[in-house]
Amino acid sequence: MPFVDLNADMGESFGAWKMGDDEALLNIVTSANIACGGHAGDADVMAATMTLADQNGVGIGAHPGFMDIAGFGRNRMNVPRGTLQNQIRYQVAASVGMARSVGAKVRHIKLHGAISNMSSEDEQMAYDLYEAALSVDPNLIVMVLAATAQQRAVKRLGCTWAGEIFADRAYNDDATLVDRSLPGAVIHDAELAGKRMVDMVQAGAIITESGKHIPTQIDTICLHGDTAEAVQIAGSVRDTLKQAGIELRCF
Amino acid sequence: MPFVDLNADMGESFGAWKMGDDEALLNIVTSANIACGGHAGDADVMAATMTLADQNGVGIGAHPGFMDIAGFGRNRMNVPRGTLQNQIRYQVAASVGMARSVGAKVRHIKLHGAISNMSSEDEQMAYDLYEAALSVDPNLIVMVLAATAQQRAVKRLGCTWAGEIFADRAYNDDATLVDRSLPGAVIHDAELAGKRMVDMVQAGAIITESGKHIPTQIDTICLHGDTAEAVQIAGSVRDTLKQAGIELRCF
Amino acid sequence: MPFVDLNADMGESFGAWKMGDDEALLNIVTSANIACGGHAGDADVMAATMTLADQNGVGIGAHPGFMDIAGFGRNRMNVPRGTLQNQIRYQVAASVGMARSVGAKVRHIKLHGAISNMSSEDEQMAYDLYEAALSVDPNLIVMVLAATAQQRAVKRLGCTWAGEIFADRAYNDDATLVDRSLPGAVIHDAELAGKRMVDMVQAGAIITESGKHIPTQIDTICLHGDTAEAVQIAGSVRDTLKQAGIELRCF
Amino acid sequence: MPFVDLNADMGESFGAWKMGDDEALLNIVTSANIACGGHAGDADVMAATMTLADQNGVGIGAHPGFMDIAGFGRNRMNVPRGTLQNQIRYQVAASVGMARSVGAKVRHIKLHGAISNMSSEDEQMAYDLYEAALSVDPNLIVMVLAATAQQRAVKRLGCTWAGEIFADRAYNDDATLVDRSLPGAVIHDAELAGKRMVDMVQAGAIITESGKHIPTQIDTICLHGDTAEAVQIAGSVRDTLKQAGIELRCF
Repeated sequence: MPFVDLNADMGESFGAWKMGDDEALLNIVTSANIACGGHAGDADVMAATMTLADQNGVGIGAHPGFMDIAGFGRNRMNVPRGTLQNQIRYQVAASVGMARSVGAKVRHIKLHGAISNMSSEDEQMAYDLYEAALSVDPNLIVMVLAATAQQRAVKRLGCTWAGEIFADRAYNDDATLVDRSLPGAVIHDAELAGKRMVDMVQAGAIITESGKHIPTQIDTICLHGDTAEAVQIAGSVRDTLKQAGIELRCF
Repeated sequence: MPFVDLNADMGESFGAWKMGDDEALLNIVTSANIACGGHAGDADVMAATMTLADQNGVGIGAHPGFMDIAGFGRNRMNVPRGTLQNQIRYQVAASVGMARSVGAKVRHIKLHGAISNMSSEDEQMAYDLYEAALSVDPNLIVMVLAATAQQRAVKRLGCTWAGEIFADRAYNDDATLVDRSLPGAVIHDAELAGKRMVDMVQAGAIITESGKHIPTQIDTICLHGDTAEAVQIAGSVRDTLKQAGIELRCF
Repeated sequence: MPFVDLNADMGESFGAWKMGDDEALLNIVTSANIACGGHAGDADVMAATMTLADQNGVGIGAHPGFMDIAGFGRNRMNVPRGTLQNQIRYQVAASVGMARSVGAKVRHIKLHGAISNMSSEDEQMAYDLYEAALSVDPNLIVMVLAATAQQRAVKRLGCTWAGEIFADRAYNDDATLVDRSLPGAVIHDAELAGKRMVDMVQAGAIITESGKHIPTQIDTICLHGDTAEAVQIAGSVRDTLKQAGIELRCF
Repeated sequence: MPFVDLNADMGESFGAWKMGDDEALLNIVTSANIACGGHAGDADVMAATMTLADQNGVGIGAHPGFMDIAGFGRNRMNVPRGTLQNQIRYQVAASVGMARSVGAKVRHIKLHGAISNMSSEDEQMAYDLYEAALSVDPNLIVMVLAATAQQRAVKRLGCTWAGEIFADRAYNDDATLVDRSLPGAVIHDAELAGKRMVDMVQAGAIITESGKHIPTQIDTICLHGDTAEAVQIAGSVRDTLKQAGIELRCF
């Protein structure tokens, strides 16, 4: 039976501020990308989210970003490469040890926001950052944006990796995402989102807006939980995949 | 032959700002308490300081404090206990993983500044924070202010610990430090500082201003390196101890 | 006709995180206490909230707190007095200039969270902090917790001030608030909250749980907007006061 | 008699960390660019530096940068323009009000680090940021890198401005600075630095490495004080200018 993992970013609350409905998402996904205190999250949020993920049998991932709480890691920053590697080491280290301290374990790493966008375009950057992460724990599985420079980087590194596609975003013919400003870029129809994912997983390919198939390894599907609508789409994608006979489990 | 460890706080530079002469200190001490990014230090500083300590054969310690860069962890803060425990977990985790990523290892933990002062007066606080640190790595040696509530906490925890005295601070008869505002509280005479340490190590006791002996386990001596004078005192204490036949090595 | 001001804390969102329903509150209150980037708020949030308050004819106040975003200014901190005064100057200055840059004006100042609690118990602390705020703009009206050390401080300073009571908190016989952990401490009944405020404004006194009257100058009533329930209570208090013939306007 | 202003960045200490010898510089310069808490500086440092500058009769400037303490404002960041304008407003507002609270006055504004470099290449960015600064106080004099996009922006804005050249940096033929990695880019010879400044001020032109003259308005010369050598060069430039009969005074 074919299978796929469902992942979502979480643990992005900070101090007095809450973000996303992590409890709802943890009933849907099989992997959780948990912020490390760099772009979001703090020690309390990390401990609580990791504990909850572990209790739900959801795989835990470190989700490092630019160390820019005020900008939520969304602004591209020109940080010297060595510094950026150390910041990835720091965040992954904090995650790995925090997980251990609550009796859980970090299984994977996924980059966040601008740092992920930049390394999806820059193979050497992806390579350097993944290498930094693996220096903390060589057993981490690296989650990459399928068919991008991130994927080329993990192949060159020779590490264990998982390829990711998006449930709610349309694709261009070169496997990049359709720009958010264009019509149809973001999929708001829960049914459509689910159907697309079934098609892509069964085809083993990204299917673009034009209908083109880009064969790629699909290990995990990215869902969102920052709005009530997003949680609903996430649940629908899950249900549709199961109905199509695709097993949902951690990569 | 009797032996003792010499420790100093370091890795307290931050971003563009340098603090202390870590390179000089690493030629003097046998253990380094390296800031974890909470009250000082950042990912670059941690990586560089740990690497240098390891190259010098100096034992590495995590040195967590209140998460207050602007106040250097010197201001007492009334942080909820559970939050404070998570912040200790976070900092110790970052240290442990960062050390691993540079091929080194964290051996001990020592609290910094106000968080240390508060737990030297509050056994339960010390207990809770040490327990949090040990949940990340149960093999850490806990460095405590000798003969204070910190020491009672580690005894109750049953963990491995090391008792610490200060080279450059005078003691009251209850084993607390003479208030900095009083004359003689801080010892600026390098020769005197060295002689006092030899006396205390040989006596196995804190010797107070009044001459009283408070028997206690002395495993390590705290030196400072934030001023040129401090580095000179540190070197002098080291020399005096060696001349008195006391071996200097990691606890 | 008797009149009173209604105030609420707002502008407490931060970066990607939203807090409270400021738009709803701005239709209810006559004064807005806007965070200054110390415990919450950022440059974007301040600019947007001040602009909106000004458009709604709501008086703008600077709402400084401990400079502790991670703790939302809720943790008591032992910051040296001179430093704390400078931090108040900094936050008030940022508010005053930001208001000017959007064509508005800061009319009052109100302390936030732990810094307010501490100065409601410590007259000299309140005096020092208000003096710091007034050194930026001597025309600011100081909003104080009625009948506390804050009020004694403004009387000693001789500045313009406004006395504040809470719509949703019960009072002890010494004019302090009933501890939140006790039953009845927080009033969740919108009708009751409104009725109490009418009674107190008409009596010119704080009416305690036991029914005791503590005569005090009541210029403004504090409302909350952090939950949907809170916004509902705020609206109800407003309506009840108007029905009782009490005019609602800025002090 | 010809005259010119001497300026230097200062107030860049932060919390427990000291940077530069501001006291020495304040005996040399006629204008001080004081950090605003964005890339460096804090409330204590600002208050102390402004007080000292004012006592020395040195003109005070706001020196805002990217809000990135960890990176000292040196990393280019892709912050949305509206947010960046608000961050400039915030920092300038904090400076203006802080100066007032210590009995002094902000006279000028100068951008710091990466934000300055970016706007020396991007006229619209410079225009937007200066407009934001002037919305806080329309009387501020804008200090610009002479003959760059910053200068074109102030001309378009029609505000009061001052053109700046560097004492210790060599120029290319297009008025940009010779890259730091090239030989001769940074001038370490105090005598040479002084002589060059006399030549340029007397010529009313930037004189490039090749000897080319680029006529430009020279109102102020940038000195540095971050090292002992820098302070020595600064003093030498001052002396050489005075010996050449050029008056040193605030623009």
